[in-house]
Amino acid sequence: MKKEKKGKLRIIPLGGLEQIGMNITAFEYEDSIVVVDCGLAFPEDDMLGIDLVIPDVTYLKDNASKVKGFVITHGHEDHIGALPYVLKEINLPIYTTKLTMGIIENKLKEHNLLRSTKRKVVQHGQSINLGKFRIEFIKTNHSIQDASALAIYSPAGVVVHTGDFKVDYTPVFGDAIDLQRFAEIGKKGVLALMSDSTNAERKGFTQSERTVGITFDHIFAEHQNTRLIIATFASNVDRVQQIINSAYKYKRKVVVEGRSMVNIISTASELGYLNVPENTLIEIDEMKNYPPEKMVLITTGSQGESMAALSRMAADVHRKVTIQPNDTIIFSSNPIPGNEKSVSRVINELSAKGAEVIFQDTHVSGHACQEELKLIYSLVKPKYAIPVHGEYRHLKANAEVAKSLGIPKQNVFIIQSGDVLELDDESARVVDKVHTGAVLVDGLGVGDVGNIVLRDRQHLAEDGIIIVVLTLERRTNRLLAGPDIVSRGFVYVRESEQLMEDARKAVSDALDKCLSGRHTDWNKIKLTIRDAMNDYIWKKTKRRPMVIPIIMDVDV
Amino acid sequence: MKKEKKGKLRIIPLGGLEQIGMNITAFEYEDSIVVVDCGLAFPEDDMLGIDLVIPDVTYLKDNASKVKGFVITHGHEDHIGALPYVLKEINLPIYTTKLTMGIIENKLKEHNLLRSTKRKVVQHGQSINLGKFRIEFIKTNHSIQDASALAIYSPAGVVVHTGDFKVDYTPVFGDAIDLQRFAEIGKKGVLALMSDSTNAERKGFTQSERTVGITFDHIFAEHQNTRLIIATFASNVDRVQQIINSAYKYKRKVVVEGRSMVNIISTASELGYLNVPENTLIEIDEMKNYPPEKMVLITTGSQGESMAALSRMAADVHRKVTIQPNDTIIFSSNPIPGNEKSVSRVINELSAKGAEVIFQDTHVSGHACQEELKLIYSLVKPKYAIPVHGEYRHLKANAEVAKSLGIPKQNVFIIQSGDVLELDDESARVVDKVHTGAVLVDGLGVGDVGNIVLRDRQHLAEDGIIIVVLTLERRTNRLLAGPDIVSRGFVYVRESEQLMEDARKAVSDALDKCLSGRHTDWNKIKLTIRDAMNDYIWKKTKRRPMVIPIIMDVDV
Repeated sequence: MKKEKKGKLRIIPLGGLEQIGMNITAFEYEDSIVVVDCGLAFPEDDMLGIDLVIPDVTYLKDNASKVKGFVITHGHEDHIGALPYVLKEINLPIYTTKLTMGIIENKLKEHNLLRSTKRKVVQHGQSINLGKFRIEFIKTNHSIQDASALAIYSPAGVVVHTGDFKVDYTPVFGDAIDLQRFAEIGKKGVLALMSDSTNAERKGFTQSERTVGITFDHIFAEHQNTRLIIATFASNVDRVQQIINSAYKYKRKVVVEGRSMVNIISTASELGYLNVPENTLIEIDEMKNYPPEKMVLITTGSQGESMAALSRMAADVHRKVTIQPNDTIIFSSNPIPGNEKSVSRVINELSAKGAEVIFQDTHVSGHACQEELKLIYSLVKPKYAIPVHGEYRHLKANAEVAKSLGIPKQNVFIIQSGDVLELDDESARVVDKVHTGAVLVDGLGVGDVGNIVLRDRQHLAEDGIIIVVLTLERRTNRLLAGPDIVSRGFVYVRESEQLMEDARKAVSDALDKCLSGRHTDWNKIKLTIRDAMNDYIWKKTKRRPMVIPIIMDVDV
Repeated sequence: MKKEKKGKLRIIPLGGLEQIGMNITAFEYEDSIVVVDCGLAFPEDDMLGIDLVIPDVTYLKDNASKVKGFVITHGHEDHIGALPYVLKEINLPIYTTKLTMGIIENKLKEHNLLRSTKRKVVQHGQSINLGKFRIEFIKTNHSIQDASALAIYSPAGVVVHTGDFKVDYTPVFGDAIDLQRFAEIGKKGVLALMSDSTNAERKGFTQSERTVGITFDHIFAEHQNTRLIIATFASNVDRVQQIINSAYKYKRKVVVEGRSMVNIISTASELGYLNVPENTLIEIDEMKNYPPEKMVLITTGSQGESMAALSRMAADVHRKVTIQPNDTIIFSSNPIPGNEKSVSRVINELSAKGAEVIFQDTHVSGHACQEELKLIYSLVKPKYAIPVHGEYRHLKANAEVAKSLGIPKQNVFIIQSGDVLELDDESARVVDKVHTGAVLVDGLGVGDVGNIVLRDRQHLAEDGIIIVVLTLERRTNRLLAGPDIVSRGFVYVRESEQLMEDARKAVSDALDKCLSGRHTDWNKIKLTIRDAMNDYIWKKTKRRPMVIPIIMDVDV
């Protein structure tokens, strides 16, 4: 008798492909679904007024009975940030490492979800069983501690998902990436490798985090007479550790500033991921008790975010820290694409206050470059390569690396969010497309702002608004009051009185004609007003403000 | 008898310092003023809807009788772009080199200013006399041809102004920078050197333009089976020349696409700055007559500008060029800070169409790095150093270079727009501040949009607008109609009907109370409406749309 045919594994990215952020991928085998990560994205420039963007999880809700839980690779916003929103729609248990869970729990507390969410901390080397899946957590290195790759075992085969990773042979805290385990799993046969594409365009290796510590030591040694202020990513606990190490060596007190920085440092210390020597940390209010050259401030704001601590210092609106000419400010970060101008603005402001600003050799990436990708491919030796985590250009560069190592072109899959990639050891192909999308979060509103609203905001932002109001007698359509004109964001009204009065006249004339005619339904009146106003304003200014005609009617 | 005391030279930057763009500097000696450059700036991210920014030239208008003319260093927008606007306010003759004048004349034609503007073409090595000044044009190298440094001779001493420059020993067209003349002038004694700070943070030397030509040759050699599309800055005629050279060598026809590219190439060819072999250029409509691998397109759009030719090709909305999987696209440019994401978007779109995209080693800067600055300082040996052309961080880096060469700290001046730096061979100091500023150009409007209008646009962009209208009886303030609510850019109205209806009720209730009271002037009514609406909407959504109450009154 023929052996019963095994099912196929389905990989369904619900976000994160062809974009930076919003990483979330469903793995489906028969009646079991596990979801890897649940991140947010930051709004694009044209998403005016939007705070953040989360994935549309309709597919998970439609298959709620199958979904076993979230498996989280690490604690960055683009991998965990949507959890509080998505958990309100579909409550699932969360499985991840200790520090990652600590950071998630802070979020769940804020959203009042801590009690209602089942959570289980997993150690590297451990596995968990979720329906027909077994998931093994493998130690990696990244710009946040406790990052994991996942080996996802299904009856159809094993998928290795790197998460965000780099190869750091000399990490600051804990072990190097568990290359032996990658090799061991690879030796037994791996169906697919899903690997981090962020730096796939870059040749060579990413430097060890420890090299930054060496730079810090040099800077501390050369700046023994100035206060040091170091801006970095709050979540980079190893970076903070290295600043603390240098501070301890050079006998400086450490002040931590910025809400997210304080939060992460306290979580990381509590959980044992940060080693702070006694009497090193001081409160910001204690700064006055020490000379400037005996202090180092660790602060948020390395991306030039306007509300972050460093930006407020630079703009002279920080309540407790004033930049002095003999401050030395270190950006221990690179600008994330899109933040270049904001970062530059802060550097200019700091320099103009006489401070020295250092931003070279003070950062290393947390993502693998081409040689590290080649190493992982060569250890895992997957049948299929599925580049993940990146814009199309990055996915493509990763695909080129895979092909250069001999993986046949037809076994390399650049897939899109929503694609259903069905695979087993015989074949792999995209068989379906499920609904995915971006849900915009604006204040308390989740999903109540969409393209039409954004288009209106863009229109308003471009040229402002002109409102034309008038009151008609209900039965006769006789004009009782108006047209009155109110504008915002269009021109200085005081200096353009004539323009506005002439525009009002143009509308008034068109209106007279329209009301004297026989067809005077409101739509026609509104259209007449809008056209007359648009024409006049375009002719005079070559601008197109939004024109809103409002008609009221009154029984007399 | 004591010799009569000589006057002092006054240097007054009216723009261009602590910013990129809008370069314009007045040099004043007694009754003579000459103005170097007259550039525009591109709007900052928060200048919503603004097309471009030009300098406020109140100081020139107030001293119109003294001003002798504009001396222009080269033909980039940040040095010539404001001319058509400023000439309408103060008509002055223009002095510059041939290609620069050709580019300016194209602008003057568009603005109908060609006849009314006196112009004189000057050759490198020549001088012109303007009042008490003599201005000598010195050959330099830059990313546009015919760039000049200026030696500005006044009775108080000589100022050397580098313009935008690099040192290119092997330029593609014409001569290398006239280092001998810099040395000769320096030998005779120079009061001040004003030098380009753009790349002052970068170590080493900027590579020769010719290195890009070598890269092009390699790319052409390696891509003999694909169509080539090369995006670069329209004004970089040498770059275009090198593409044409490679095309000729590899027997490809050249197609030029993008309005500004076509214009500059035609101007440069007419004036003899571009050497196009016969039968090399073809029209875009002739493309169908040649196989793809026998063509190279030179196009605009290297900065990801949404309306430029390459962006339209990438987005599949170009009328004549469709990107094919075997196209090779070369970005011969670096993203200008702020354009990184737009450029990346275009790269993603092109890659997703299967095209190969090359953006490494295909560009060199047009600005001097630190070693070149050191060379010029060492040839000119000025008494005073005045870094120009850059944000504060760049000016400061240039100042550090000057100091490292032994120029005393107190002789290095980082000045701001509006500062009046008065100098002679005995002393130099900032003695005054004149009015300067940025004038915003929006459509036809010059200066009719300012901070209040921009703040309104930002407010509108952030959360949209809610308009509340009502009609009152004139004498009694009895409510005849409304309050009616209209919103734009706030929420999807259809999905938020209940919210809007509840908001209307909240306003209506507040209004009832207000109208029943004794103090019912319109301002109070409007305030009541605004407060009630703001409170309700903030409570429900944590957003703050702009709320505009409009009251009409009717005699019944």
